[in-house]
Amino acid sequence: MRFEQRTVTCGFLRPEHAGQQVVLNGWVNARRDYGGIIFIDLRDREGVTQVVIDTSHRPELDEQIRDVRSEYVLWVKGAVRLRENPNPKIPTGLIEVLADEIGIINAADVTPFEIVDDLGTNEELRLTYRYLDLRRPVLQRNFLIRNKLYQITHRFFEEEGFVEIETPVLTKSTPEGARDFLVPSRINKGRFYALPQSPQLFKQLLMVSGFDKYMQIVKCFRDEDLRADRQPEFTQIDVEMSFITQEDIIALTERFVLQAWKEILNYEVSTPLLRMPFKTAMERYGSDKPDLRYGLELTNVTITAGVCGFSIFSDAVASGNVVMALNAKGCGSFSRKQIDELGEHAKKYGAKGLPWLKVSGGEVTGSFVKFLSDEHRDLLLQELKAEDGDLLLFSPGEWERACIISGALRTEVARRTGILDGVAGTYSFHWITEFPLLEHSEEENRWIARHHPFTAPMDADVSLLSSDPTHARAIAHDLVINGYEAAGGSIRIHTNDVQQTMFDLLGFTREDADAKFGFLLNALRFGAPPHGGIAFGFDRLVMLLCQTDNIRDVIAFPKTTSGLSLMDGCPSDVDTKQLGDLGIALTRQ
Amino acid sequence: MRFEQRTVTCGFLRPEHAGQQVVLNGWVNARRDYGGIIFIDLRDREGVTQVVIDTSHRPELDEQIRDVRSEYVLWVKGAVRLRENPNPKIPTGLIEVLADEIGIINAADVTPFEIVDDLGTNEELRLTYRYLDLRRPVLQRNFLIRNKLYQITHRFFEEEGFVEIETPVLTKSTPEGARDFLVPSRINKGRFYALPQSPQLFKQLLMVSGFDKYMQIVKCFRDEDLRADRQPEFTQIDVEMSFITQEDIIALTERFVLQAWKEILNYEVSTPLLRMPFKTAMERYGSDKPDLRYGLELTNVTITAGVCGFSIFSDAVASGNVVMALNAKGCGSFSRKQIDELGEHAKKYGAKGLPWLKVSGGEVTGSFVKFLSDEHRDLLLQELKAEDGDLLLFSPGEWERACIISGALRTEVARRTGILDGVAGTYSFHWITEFPLLEHSEEENRWIARHHPFTAPMDADVSLLSSDPTHARAIAHDLVINGYEAAGGSIRIHTNDVQQTMFDLLGFTREDADAKFGFLLNALRFGAPPHGGIAFGFDRLVMLLCQTDNIRDVIAFPKTTSGLSLMDGCPSDVDTKQLGDLGIALTRQ
Repeated sequence: MRFEQRTVTCGFLRPEHAGQQVVLNGWVNARRDYGGIIFIDLRDREGVTQVVIDTSHRPELDEQIRDVRSEYVLWVKGAVRLRENPNPKIPTGLIEVLADEIGIINAADVTPFEIVDDLGTNEELRLTYRYLDLRRPVLQRNFLIRNKLYQITHRFFEEEGFVEIETPVLTKSTPEGARDFLVPSRINKGRFYALPQSPQLFKQLLMVSGFDKYMQIVKCFRDEDLRADRQPEFTQIDVEMSFITQEDIIALTERFVLQAWKEILNYEVSTPLLRMPFKTAMERYGSDKPDLRYGLELTNVTITAGVCGFSIFSDAVASGNVVMALNAKGCGSFSRKQIDELGEHAKKYGAKGLPWLKVSGGEVTGSFVKFLSDEHRDLLLQELKAEDGDLLLFSPGEWERACIISGALRTEVARRTGILDGVAGTYSFHWITEFPLLEHSEEENRWIARHHPFTAPMDADVSLLSSDPTHARAIAHDLVINGYEAAGGSIRIHTNDVQQTMFDLLGFTREDADAKFGFLLNALRFGAPPHGGIAFGFDRLVMLLCQTDNIRDVIAFPKTTSGLSLMDGCPSDVDTKQLGDLGIALTRQ
Repeated sequence: MRFEQRTVTCGFLRPEHAGQQVVLNGWVNARRDYGGIIFIDLRDREGVTQVVIDTSHRPELDEQIRDVRSEYVLWVKGAVRLRENPNPKIPTGLIEVLADEIGIINAADVTPFEIVDDLGTNEELRLTYRYLDLRRPVLQRNFLIRNKLYQITHRFFEEEGFVEIETPVLTKSTPEGARDFLVPSRINKGRFYALPQSPQLFKQLLMVSGFDKYMQIVKCFRDEDLRADRQPEFTQIDVEMSFITQEDIIALTERFVLQAWKEILNYEVSTPLLRMPFKTAMERYGSDKPDLRYGLELTNVTITAGVCGFSIFSDAVASGNVVMALNAKGCGSFSRKQIDELGEHAKKYGAKGLPWLKVSGGEVTGSFVKFLSDEHRDLLLQELKAEDGDLLLFSPGEWERACIISGALRTEVARRTGILDGVAGTYSFHWITEFPLLEHSEEENRWIARHHPFTAPMDADVSLLSSDPTHARAIAHDLVINGYEAAGGSIRIHTNDVQQTMFDLLGFTREDADAKFGFLLNALRFGAPPHGGIAFGFDRLVMLLCQTDNIRDVIAFPKTTSGLSLMDGCPSDVDTKQLGDLGIALTRQ
């Protein structure tokens, strides 16, 4: 196929180029025929240029472009001239190219959907024809932003003295947390590699090796039941440093975020960022990743509620639980149905019910108002700073559960009242610190690591490991942006004995610990430096920068929530012979 | 564990810092005790600094470092001073730090091997303790070079206007060539993802999407029986461009290689690089990736050999085959045993025997000299420019096979005669072009694509596709450096009809083609631009830059040739429950 190669892109030309002879290559974005004059908007990655075909003077051109419609690929040679009717909305809107020669590089069938941004088309169809979907301006822009973040990331960490090192994708299965994707080995039949959930152990070993400052933009994998904002494979910026403290990691991260938001959005992140201990975040916002773009803070009303006379509250408090409450400002107008919906929402997070009060026209109504003395009622209103028109939502229960339920109600209320829409386009960055090191798994009846088993306890809390593990805090830090966990990390355990103590505490037998993590335990015996790090959710950072809440908008070829690629139909059946070579067979379903 | 954080690295201090108070953190590289004075060489990524502990004046320090030996991690606080006995061999060799305070950050067991470069230790032990192996200066240096190449790569392609886009790791299995690694899907039981052998189709689809210039540094996977220089996962720089010709790809690649060699080795690559058609490379060097740092060219002696009277030659020529020959300059002194070894080497490449002649003291001897007339003998010597002391090696057979055998002998002779050692540290860069598009698989009795089925035929050879496919050449290009294929690529087919023709030619039924590559065939119907690209073997580039021929020296955590990671023992057994969740079971071996 012969074509003349472009001399400029479709985003290049400006009035100062008028009179020049140019060649454009691109896609037909639109075609408009006006008897004798045909306009074609020609598009490439850089922009759109208007091409004019004057068929009244050049009838042979009419012949050549007779079949041309949207998404045909053309080459056009001609002279740049100023437009009679400029379009100030696009950078090339002051000029056009008068076609002298024109040729079809490739034809295009009618596309299954239009290549425009505001698209009614359902996402399945778009994902099936992802290569067309990706032509839409909004997705083109997202991937240019994603690319910009790559380049900023590489440059930033290079300038900070980090060494980029690749860790393996075919690794050892050490399930502790999410499920691993497995890869059967053909050469070593009956044995399996696992795709890494994170390069955690490798980056720690690189610190033991003395690489000092490591970074990598790396794919990680989790075989989880997918949620809307999850993908089976995701990208993280993985970072680890030696001879440092938590302060160094926090400062580095803040410099990085500052630079990224500045370069991409020209947005000034104000550092140092607010830091909030886990306990405070839970009590005030009911989340370990609260969105601080708005208030709607929770109140712990345990003391008053415990004596207010409502037995659900007093029973809860008597058994050592708490009562958290949210003043849904201005939601006193919510109907009974709306309040029931909030109750249903609370139940998803483990609530048994949703006691509420409403203040309206000086009158207090609600699900349990009849059990309250005037005095206790007023005390509750006062603690919650309730005013006329407010709705008060109460969550009695175990402390963390009650906080989470109230936090979920906080988010839901923000969504329903338009608070979330009101803060769109703004950013809130902060740290959550002092996470609990452990949590008790009722299911497995053992302690499990809240972050991962390699996280160091806070110096002040080391003694709690033997006496009161529940209250031992980790030297961990999560960066939260607009309610998303954008990055998370910790200082790691760097001595063999503390790591062994941790495995003991988590209920590993020595044999188990050796079989799974013996190489790490060994490495810690040969002079491991103090080290720690952080991992950024790259896809999430891009989502935040692109201001989308659909993760598939920032991943070129994403999977659906069922783990399918609708474009190529994977996962797919494979030959029995291939399975035989691997020494595996399908079991009867 | 309390320690004082470093104020400088172990590679920082110079004479101008004398008198300053500093803190160092690092590993004990060596300890030397001289009664009353102890010297410790403290090491980190940046270098080594000599620390002096004057125990005669500071006896309490003696106590503190009593147990300290190699690979202990220390912090040292003290004043910089000029050395009495400078060591000009290291950048910090003019100064030392007189310890004022010193502390053990972490202890170290005796390491299973010494942390030095010239190591007798076998590679298995080193790989088992890879985190210690990586402390050796030569490996530290290799990974700093690798990092430098990453950064140069990102910067170069960014400046050239490329967009970095990630393609999936969980992809569709389309085995055509090497075996895929498979990943069983838990959510879609009985179905499998495959790890990509290359992002070929995705990058072509990104061109269809209009991203114009794409690049990615990406992990690829091949489940092959491993050879010494292969790994099951490897890294490539993947590049694709739209609206371009082969010349654009070649020019881009040359700019990249020029910049990389310049920045890393301060080596001037002289561009434009030599280009050699596949056919010439085979005839002159017996390889499609010849090492051009030395001559030892082959000679096609078919015409003379066919009539020389030696029936093995004449029979070969009569049946349409050829006789290739190598003048192993100066190897006339090879013993019979050495020549037999060359014969064994030739057999590995498919030779049935190795006819040879030797010129020594004016006398010609050899395995078939008795069948030759003086005239034909002299003619052969003349064609091969044989001089006294030369050894002539002949390979009769099918053209490509005979070339490959002669080429293998060329390399072996270069190795044995020290020619290869003589060119160590030098570089030869060139292009191989005009590859055959197809080759005939005797095994499958069908045409298979020599590169891959998406490679475009040369314009001049399109008509050969139907008449004489053997002689159709591809618009393909391999960059060869020192006998390694450092990069390979092509212009791709960008129209549906040519791609369909190609699949037909390769013996795909329409159903097969649709099932495997339907999404590509579809994409080519919606306005695909002309496009092409190249992929660089990143690990190989690093090997060449580091001047090592062991690929494991440039991969942080490599596998053995049996696909094992000796450090963590993967691949490993997994729970039956995990397999059950995936709907698979092991078959009886």
